[in-house]
Amino acid sequence: MRNDLHTELTVRIFTDRKCFGPGVAELLRRVRELHSLRAAAMSMNMAYSKAWTVLRSAQEGLGVRLLRSSTGGKNGGGAVLTAEGERLLAAYEDYCAKLRAYGEALFAETFAFYDALTEEEK
Amino acid sequence: MRNDLHTELTVRIFTDRKCFGPGVAELLRRVRELHSLRAAAMSMNMAYSKAWTVLRSAQEGLGVRLLRSSTGGKNGGGAVLTAEGERLLAAYEDYCAKLRAYGEALFAETFAFYDALTEEEK
Repeated sequence: MRNDLHTELTVRIFTDRKCFGPGVAELLRRVRELHSLRAAAMSMNMAYSKAWTVLRSAQEGLGVRLLRSSTGGKNGGGAVLTAEGERLLAAYEDYCAKLRAYGEALFAETFAFYDALTEEEK
Repeated sequence: MRNDLHTELTVRIFTDRKCFGPGVAELLRRVRELHSLRAAAMSMNMAYSKAWTVLRSAQEGLGVRLLRSSTGGKNGGGAVLTAEGERLLAAYEDYCAKLRAYGEALFAETFAFYDALTEEEK
């Protein structure tokens, strides 16, 4: 289906370095679900050491702690998002969703000529 | 400068496969400038074979020819963008520029809380 043209947007956030993007966002969502950085990393087929590097780099770049250790619970502790981590993740998701919604209409408009172009080629 | 939060957007276009993105766009811009796929690839430190693969994949995915051989001129021929290639590159650049302009204001608004967040951390 050559005429089914569509787009994908990747949003990365920088300070003095790259500090937030799809990978960190996914890691945080999984920590929220699984209450553990190790389990979150495993569920993404990511090495635990890599997850730590990703997280540390995001925290240092942002100057904000994203995770904290939780205590208690039936698994005897793990990791949870800090209030700041929740807020940044929510803002990232909100921003991406709004940008995609805007981008969709704009894309259809900007590439409207494409169908005619491929008709001519046939 | 931790507070200097900014974003970068990457736009990729798909049909049944990935067929257009920042790499193809840059390659086409350089072909336009240098009138040669080989020279364009070299100027990006890209192997000529890789440039061919990128181009072929884009053309097959889009179902549109992007380059054609030029004849004559002082270098005895080379490559130029087809009308369709020019049009697709222009549409991609236009789309990216408009999306970035929209995204900039939205980003400032969505992440307005960030400065206060990092103030608290200090």
